Amino acid sequence: MEKKVSRIGVLTSGGDSPGMNAAIRAVVRTGLYYGLEVYGIMRGYQGLMENDIKKMESRSVANIIQRGGTILKTARCKAFHTEEGRKQAYDVLKSHGIDGLVIIGGDGSFQGAVKFSREFDIPCIGLAGTIDKDIYGTDFTIGFDTAVNTAVEAIDKIRDTADAHDRLFIVEVMGRDAGYIALHSGIATGAENILVPEQKTNIQDVIASLQEKERRKKLVNIIVVAEGDEFGGANKVAEAIKQHVPGVEARVCILGHIQRGGAPSCLDRLIASRMGYHAVESLIEGRHNVFVGIQNNRMNYVPLENVGKRKGTISSEWMKIVKILAS
Amino acid sequence: MEKKVSRIGVLTSGGDSPGMNAAIRAVVRTGLYYGLEVYGIMRGYQGLMENDIKKMESRSVANIIQRGGTILKTARCKAFHTEEGRKQAYDVLKSHGIDGLVIIGGDGSFQGAVKFSREFDIPCIGLAGTIDKDIYGTDFTIGFDTAVNTAVEAIDKIRDTADAHDRLFIVEVMGRDAGYIALHSGIATGAENILVPEQKTNIQDVIASLQEKERRKKLVNIIVVAEGDEFGGANKVAEAIKQHVPGVEARVCILGHIQRGGAPSCLDRLIASRMGYHAVESLIEGRHNVFVGIQNNRMNYVPLENVGKRKGTISSEWMKIVKILAS
Amino acid sequence: MEKKVSRIGVLTSGGDSPGMNAAIRAVVRTGLYYGLEVYGIMRGYQGLMENDIKKMESRSVANIIQRGGTILKTARCKAFHTEEGRKQAYDVLKSHGIDGLVIIGGDGSFQGAVKFSREFDIPCIGLAGTIDKDIYGTDFTIGFDTAVNTAVEAIDKIRDTADAHDRLFIVEVMGRDAGYIALHSGIATGAENILVPEQKTNIQDVIASLQEKERRKKLVNIIVVAEGDEFGGANKVAEAIKQHVPGVEARVCILGHIQRGGAPSCLDRLIASRMGYHAVESLIEGRHNVFVGIQNNRMNYVPLENVGKRKGTISSEWMKIVKILAS
Amino acid sequence: MEKKVSRIGVLTSGGDSPGMNAAIRAVVRTGLYYGLEVYGIMRGYQGLMENDIKKMESRSVANIIQRGGTILKTARCKAFHTEEGRKQAYDVLKSHGIDGLVIIGGDGSFQGAVKFSREFDIPCIGLAGTIDKDIYGTDFTIGFDTAVNTAVEAIDKIRDTADAHDRLFIVEVMGRDAGYIALHSGIATGAENILVPEQKTNIQDVIASLQEKERRKKLVNIIVVAEGDEFGGANKVAEAIKQHVPGVEARVCILGHIQRGGAPSCLDRLIASRMGYHAVESLIEGRHNVFVGIQNNRMNYVPLENVGKRKGTISSEWMKIVKILAS
Repeated sequence: MEKKVSRIGVLTSGGDSPGMNAAIRAVVRTGLYYGLEVYGIMRGYQGLMENDIKKMESRSVANIIQRGGTILKTARCKAFHTEEGRKQAYDVLKSHGIDGLVIIGGDGSFQGAVKFSREFDIPCIGLAGTIDKDIYGTDFTIGFDTAVNTAVEAIDKIRDTADAHDRLFIVEVMGRDAGYIALHSGIATGAENILVPEQKTNIQDVIASLQEKERRKKLVNIIVVAEGDEFGGANKVAEAIKQHVPGVEARVCILGHIQRGGAPSCLDRLIASRMGYHAVESLIEGRHNVFVGIQNNRMNYVPLENVGKRKGTISSEWMKIVKILAS
Repeated sequence: MEKKVSRIGVLTSGGDSPGMNAAIRAVVRTGLYYGLEVYGIMRGYQGLMENDIKKMESRSVANIIQRGGTILKTARCKAFHTEEGRKQAYDVLKSHGIDGLVIIGGDGSFQGAVKFSREFDIPCIGLAGTIDKDIYGTDFTIGFDTAVNTAVEAIDKIRDTADAHDRLFIVEVMGRDAGYIALHSGIATGAENILVPEQKTNIQDVIASLQEKERRKKLVNIIVVAEGDEFGGANKVAEAIKQHVPGVEARVCILGHIQRGGAPSCLDRLIASRMGYHAVESLIEGRHNVFVGIQNNRMNYVPLENVGKRKGTISSEWMKIVKILAS
Repeated sequence: MEKKVSRIGVLTSGGDSPGMNAAIRAVVRTGLYYGLEVYGIMRGYQGLMENDIKKMESRSVANIIQRGGTILKTARCKAFHTEEGRKQAYDVLKSHGIDGLVIIGGDGSFQGAVKFSREFDIPCIGLAGTIDKDIYGTDFTIGFDTAVNTAVEAIDKIRDTADAHDRLFIVEVMGRDAGYIALHSGIATGAENILVPEQKTNIQDVIASLQEKERRKKLVNIIVVAEGDEFGGANKVAEAIKQHVPGVEARVCILGHIQRGGAPSCLDRLIASRMGYHAVESLIEGRHNVFVGIQNNRMNYVPLENVGKRKGTISSEWMKIVKILAS
Repeated sequence: MEKKVSRIGVLTSGGDSPGMNAAIRAVVRTGLYYGLEVYGIMRGYQGLMENDIKKMESRSVANIIQRGGTILKTARCKAFHTEEGRKQAYDVLKSHGIDGLVIIGGDGSFQGAVKFSREFDIPCIGLAGTIDKDIYGTDFTIGFDTAVNTAVEAIDKIRDTADAHDRLFIVEVMGRDAGYIALHSGIATGAENILVPEQKTNIQDVIASLQEKERRKKLVNIIVVAEGDEFGGANKVAEAIKQHVPGVEARVCILGHIQRGGAPSCLDRLIASRMGYHAVESLIEGRHNVFVGIQNNRMNYVPLENVGKRKGTISSEWMKIVKILAS
């Protein structure tokens, strides 16, 4: 039988994402509700190794559910990838009597947790905090819905100018390995073309489509490109277009870091609250070293070692709908 | 075998909801893509009976995906509930050669369509356009996500003042028969209590909870009430509280119609686009007189006559999470 | 010659307004820059009397410029209107060695400060923190620009529904004695009529104008009413209209407290920063017991005892523009 | 005596700016109110030369006051800089009987108007439609307030991430020759440094300031750079910093075209409405070939030939406030 947890730690790791604070709040308050002590670990594994830790009360997480970023701050930490680093982290946890850990972050953060939980007797729970929605085992990741709405609002603004000037805009959104932000924001803003890492970009098709639109005098066009598209991002696409469709006036916009911040959307606050609650329940009920996701509206528990980036597939149905609706 | 459709009409009916324009756009462009003629019917069944109809081109729906409201306008129409009314509507459709109909609206709008499709040989497809998310057979309704985010943004603002003044605010959100807007916006804003039509409101519990918080000096509180709560809405709740917890300073806010308008969220544009596309596919493939919903990320086709308001159930898990997180 | 100040206190009083935090930040950091100690007084005069005071550092005001509400909280305080109350407040200030006071609030808050500064040797500086823009001696008050933009965004949403349903909406905005929120938000949203306390409402004119519009089939109309309009607010106006223009479908929306909160606009952050800076400069330079306003882009210093609500005048030019543009 | 105008044209020229639609609406409705015919000229001088002109009714400008972009579209037009081009434009205007012209655009657009009004007997009125606020003779330009608020919202989001990661962000905002967007958005977001074209950038000062902050462990910093800063924009600044302050993690964000679009702010709608109204009044009253600005809340009429870019001066008071408040 699993031993019972009594003091848990919570940290955020990797790139920040909107809704992380809602998850922290849920972990803290659920922990306190069940009589646990809860410790906030600052700056991810870095702060853990440096013993940058503080006890959390209910008030510590008051009025944060609506805030972007993370009150626990986050960092990338190379030292935790070494055995010495993890041993140091373990000693810090032991010194506090912390016997359970909730890690809110992306798939890189979980790899460290897998090793740590194998080496030491401190159970870890993973929650998907990433705007990229590229984690296996969950329909939602904390931050995706906010990021994609931020992208949509930005592209709506760009469309005003595209429309006023009869111009083509090539907009680059976040997504190194996953095209979900590009796909969703592209559909939602009526983009003519959406270029994602999951599909080989055929630049000849893009050019042919623009030439056809030029003939039809449809001059206002938006192409959304994921930053990780193998063709090379918005600037590369723009170059190719300028070369082959000289009549088209093209502008590039790289949305960048505005996609990470801001008040989380209702959906991100909900899933973060629900996941945070179930993370603590999992620790208490002995469901250890799992990733807590949501699939088909049910909680889904995946052994942490099986969690990884989601295989990239964009449904062909969506690509057909994009083509038809942007006509 | 079903006869083939060649000219289809689309209308919006009942209360407007953000995303209706995205659905109209999808119906029009998918129809044109498949070689159909598409007609926009103004002001729902009212405009249908009055022959207020115009042919739609691809450009007719340009630059509307991001707009709230409905370019086809909407109305409630009593005459269509009579046999004469529906006969008149049929004659109008026949005069245009329209042989298929897409109705975007709430459950009341579908009841008319059921009768109409029984009496006449014009197949009807229903799409859920309502902010209330109370339609059987679909996880999403067009407009809910936008409405609930609008409510969340409004309550976030109210919390600033609640916090500055150490006050209790009682916020009434939309939802005559369904408490989903109240539930989601309440969780997302950290409301202390959420009162919904699906559950009997025990005002003694609400009062006891406030008294307990008063003792703990937790003076900033928000209660979210669905307009259809059987206890009687925000004003009634405020009265009861003032009577029994005189030390509490309570304010009432009724969010009202701001919840219907505004640019649709990314999610609402996506589901509206997808549903609109499948509505036309359904007409073409002979899947007639059905409601097109989405369940577990798959299209769900329900015979129109089976569609109705969703039985109100709020999961007990959520109510437990609300209680724990607002502590 | 005025004696030099060395320890100053800052408080917010009356209704909260967006931008108060930016003003607090400016007072604190300017004070520290000039070598003063700065104390934050909680909950206005109430917290002053109760000795609810804390020393502020530069970090105390980090990351608040973008927050609505006030980190110092605010309250209305009857006891400060008595001599005993003010004596008690003075004793508290003396015990901290505080020898200068910045009061951010509305005209009611300044009346207390006038008496206090006459009775005791602690100079007071007033800054206009109110969404109503009704203070004499300044073109701007902290919070007005944000509040009016919140109202505009809300009415834009309502217009979506008004337009979809061909309806009349009567929207009530804040403003007990001043119609500026109504005037500005009404013009900016193309309202047909704007009813303000500064002008006698001729309901017959409103009705006649609607009847004329009904004849022209201009059915989508918005009337913006200040809560302090002597005719009696939106509900009263709606009643009168329903009685005399029965063909018109009218809906009432009372925007309420959402107008107080939210992230301050750029302008409100700017004027709050500038005023806060000059409040401290005034204390240091011996410009005591003044209200610090901005007029024609220059700082304007008014003896506190002369400050009061601004005489209500709405320019006739604007009323003419409203009439012409809403046609 | 000036001859009376009876048919006027309105066009938008140069880069689009939010509020142009509000100005068009005001010109059209004021014109109609005074019994004039009003013609909308598409795509600026380009559409004028190509006779792309349509008669405007009151309904043509319904429901546009809240829209970004310009319904008349805009373009840059080289041909109008030639005498032949202007002659052709004149012939088009004559063919419609248009005897007055309102030009909404930037200072480049007015240069064309000056020549045109000298050569031909068609009076021109200029309105400042530019987000850069760099036109002589007016405190406001249509679009500036919206653009700067868009920048502020974007930087607020970036700050969430800067704060979560203890990072430096260098944000580039629009402004080729004018630093107002950088100055206002920088103050409003608490930027540590603001680099503008009006002042020589001393990169050594920037570096020294960051080094000093590094020593104080103030790691979260934002620098706002106008695109036209002579040092060379955000990327150049980032390079210099990385070279000299290697411990600092710096990220670059270029906000780009999102600053042009979006629903105009309340202020931009108001000044656009007021300016549009006075443009028509000016044509009627014989105040010809003037630019219509607002100074100290009064209308200011400047002969078009005197209008130019505003001499760049950023007040030293503001630069001092920036320095003090960001400490």
